[in-house]
Amino acid sequence: MSKFAVAQSGGPTAAINATLLGVIEGALENGTQILGAVNGIKGVIDDNFMNLNNIFEDAQNRALLKNTPGAYLGSCRIKLPDADSDTDMYERIFEVFKKNDIDKFIYIGGNDSMDTVDKLSRYAKEHNIDIAVVGAPKTIDNDLAGTDHTPGFGSAARFVASSVKEVARDSGVYAEKSITIIEIMGRNAGWLTASSSLARSENSSAPHLIYLPERPVSREKIIEDIKNCKENNIIIAVSEGIKDENGEYYCAQATQSHDIFGHAQLAGCAKVLEKFLGDEFGYKMRSVELSVLQRCGGHFTSLTDLDESERIGKSAALAAAKGKRGIVMGFKRDGDYVCNIVENNVCDVANKERKVPDEFISADGNDVTDEFIKYCKPLIMGDVQVITENGVPKHIIR
Amino acid sequence: MSKFAVAQSGGPTAAINATLLGVIEGALENGTQILGAVNGIKGVIDDNFMNLNNIFEDAQNRALLKNTPGAYLGSCRIKLPDADSDTDMYERIFEVFKKNDIDKFIYIGGNDSMDTVDKLSRYAKEHNIDIAVVGAPKTIDNDLAGTDHTPGFGSAARFVASSVKEVARDSGVYAEKSITIIEIMGRNAGWLTASSSLARSENSSAPHLIYLPERPVSREKIIEDIKNCKENNIIIAVSEGIKDENGEYYCAQATQSHDIFGHAQLAGCAKVLEKFLGDEFGYKMRSVELSVLQRCGGHFTSLTDLDESERIGKSAALAAAKGKRGIVMGFKRDGDYVCNIVENNVCDVANKERKVPDEFISADGNDVTDEFIKYCKPLIMGDVQVITENGVPKHIIR
Repeated sequence: MSKFAVAQSGGPTAAINATLLGVIEGALENGTQILGAVNGIKGVIDDNFMNLNNIFEDAQNRALLKNTPGAYLGSCRIKLPDADSDTDMYERIFEVFKKNDIDKFIYIGGNDSMDTVDKLSRYAKEHNIDIAVVGAPKTIDNDLAGTDHTPGFGSAARFVASSVKEVARDSGVYAEKSITIIEIMGRNAGWLTASSSLARSENSSAPHLIYLPERPVSREKIIEDIKNCKENNIIIAVSEGIKDENGEYYCAQATQSHDIFGHAQLAGCAKVLEKFLGDEFGYKMRSVELSVLQRCGGHFTSLTDLDESERIGKSAALAAAKGKRGIVMGFKRDGDYVCNIVENNVCDVANKERKVPDEFISADGNDVTDEFIKYCKPLIMGDVQVITENGVPKHIIR
Repeated sequence: MSKFAVAQSGGPTAAINATLLGVIEGALENGTQILGAVNGIKGVIDDNFMNLNNIFEDAQNRALLKNTPGAYLGSCRIKLPDADSDTDMYERIFEVFKKNDIDKFIYIGGNDSMDTVDKLSRYAKEHNIDIAVVGAPKTIDNDLAGTDHTPGFGSAARFVASSVKEVARDSGVYAEKSITIIEIMGRNAGWLTASSSLARSENSSAPHLIYLPERPVSREKIIEDIKNCKENNIIIAVSEGIKDENGEYYCAQATQSHDIFGHAQLAGCAKVLEKFLGDEFGYKMRSVELSVLQRCGGHFTSLTDLDESERIGKSAALAAAKGKRGIVMGFKRDGDYVCNIVENNVCDVANKERKVPDEFISADGNDVTDEFIKYCKPLIMGDVQVITENGVPKHIIR
C-alpha cells in the first residue's frame, strides 16, 4: 500500500499550515494514508513521522490548522549535500521512504527547500526509485521563481501594510516634526517592503519613502529625499537588506552573523538610519522593527492568501497522486484577478531568486510604481474570521 | 450659549478615539455644540479648535472613529506650570474658553494629563470661573489610580498576548534550543507585560518567564530560572523598565534620553538580555520589541475595551453637563465581570502611579498569579469587526 508523506521547511509563515491542510485534503480525497515528517527532511532522516489522517478528519482541527501560523510539523534548515559527495544520506532517506511505503513526498518550503526537491527527484530518477517528489512553495519573501507570487506573502504583506498605516496614526499625533523608520524583512528582495505602499489611502499618505535592496541608495540621497517631503511626520519603509552606493549593507554597523546557507543574518539598518538622520535633522526619531511578527501574525491574515495556499497544497498532492515528479507548483495570474495553479520543473525554480523588477520601482528609487500596487493589492484582500479562545487566537499544536 | 470642548493628550492608544466618540455622543445627546482642541491643551492655548458636531452626526464616521487608533484630535506632552509661577498661561487658557463660550472641558489622557485637569480645576475654583473640567482616563500602561483598569489597556493587552502566542509558534518550528525575549512597554508598572500571560492555553505554555519592573531581578536569577525551564523554545516576556538587584535598568547599556516629564525613555533591555543569555547558554537567541505596534494596533482590539472606552467618554461628558467638576471618571468592577463607571476627585488621581500589586506577582518574581489572570482576562475579550479598505484597516483622519 502506498502512502503520502509531507514535510515543512524553512522559515515559518502565517499560511504554510494552510498549504499543509491542502496536502492533507488532497491525500484524504485520494483515499491515501498521509504521514507528516517532523522538522522537515530531518524527520525523514530520523524516521520520525506522525499519522495525519485521524487528526485532520476532524473539521474543527482542519479549520484551526488553516489559521495557525508557524509550521505545524516543525521545520528545519538542512541543506542536502550533493548526492555524489554523500550517498549515505540519500540511501538513508529512500530507505526510510521504502520502509514506510511512502511513494509520494510533498515538501513545502522556499528557495532552499526546492533545492531539496530537486536533489531528491534527481536521485530517485537516476536510481529508478518510484517516488513522486513534488514541491509546494512558501515564503513571505515572494522571491521564488516560476510563480506570480508565493503562498504566505499576501498575509505578510497585509500585516506590513496595516502595521505601517497604524504606525502612521501613532506618529501623527504630535505636532512636532518626526521621522519614523520601519524595518521590514527582505534580505535581497524588497517585495515585502514594497507592500508597505498598500498602507496608502485617500486620506493616509504614509509611507512617504520606500527603499528596497534592489536599489542601492546613498546617505546623501536619503537626506535629500527627506528634505523633499512636505509631511510633518515622515514614515520611511526600509528593507533589512538595503545597501549604500558602494554596495555596503546599512546594517553593517550592527553585528552580523550568517545562517547555515551562508546568508547574512541582517538586523539593525533602521537603527543606523535613525542615528544619522537624527544627527542631520534633529527631529524626533523612532525606528520600528516588524521582526517575526510580520511572518507569524496569524491574527490578521489575507483570506486570498490562505485560500490560495490551501489550493496549491491540494494541487501538489493531487499531482503527486497522478505520478507527477520533480515539479514545483506555482501561481499564474490571469486578468485581474484570477489565480491559476501551474506546474514548474523544479530545476527551473530551485536556487533562483526573483527580485522586484524595474517596472515596479519608481524611477527615483524611493518608491514603488502604480503597476506594483496593481500587482500586489489583490493578494492582501479578504478578511479572515479569526478563531479565538479567551480573547487570543486559538492554535492547533503538534 | 454654552459649549463643550474636548482634547486628547499623552501617548496614543487604540481606544482613545472610542473615548472621544463617547464624549461627542454625550454632547450630541445633551444637544450641545462640541469643539475639539487640536493637539491637546496646546490647541486651547492656540485657540485651534474644530467643530465636531457635523462630522460625527454621520454614523459611518462615528464607527470609523471608534476603530481608528492614535488620537484623532492630535496629542501633546505639555505639562502646565504651577498657576502661581505662570498666571499668563492660565489667563490665556480661560480667555480662550470664554471667547468660544466653552463651559465644559473634557480632557482625555494619562497620569500627566490628569495633572492638567487638576490644575485647571483648581484655578477655575480659585478664580470663580464657571467651567466644568472633567478627566477621562486613557493609557495602555494601566497605571492610573482610582480605576480598576484604564481604557486602552485591554486592547494593548490583547495585542501583546496574541503576539506572544504567535511568536511562540514562530520560535517553536525548529528542533534546536532557543530563547526568545519579547520586550513590552512599561516604564515602572508591569501591567502590560503581565498580560502576556493570557497567551497561555491548554496546549501553549509560553511565555515561560515574565519579569516586571516591580521585582528587580539579577542576571544570576534569570539564568537560574532558564535552567529550570524544561521547554526547548523558551519565551521570556520582559518590561522595558526591568531592573537588576541594584536597581539599575537593564537597558542602561543602551542609549538613554529623557522625555519632557523627566521620564527615562527606555529601549533595549531585550537586547541586553539577548547578549548575556546568548553568552551563557549558546542557544539560538532572538529579541523582539513590540514597540508602538502594541499601542496603535487597531486591527486586533478588545471589544470590551472599545465599548468601555466609549462609555467612559460619554459618562464624562454627561457628568460635565450636570455641572460636575474637578473629577476623573474611573471603572469599578463588580463580581466577575461587570464594569461600572465611577467619579474620582482629580486630586486623588493626578500624578499617582498604580503598580502591579504583590498578589498579582508570583512568589518567585518570575510570573504572575492566577488572581492576575482572573483580573485581566475579561478586559481582552470580544472580537471587533475591523472596517477595512483595500485589505487594510480604514481610518478617519482629521
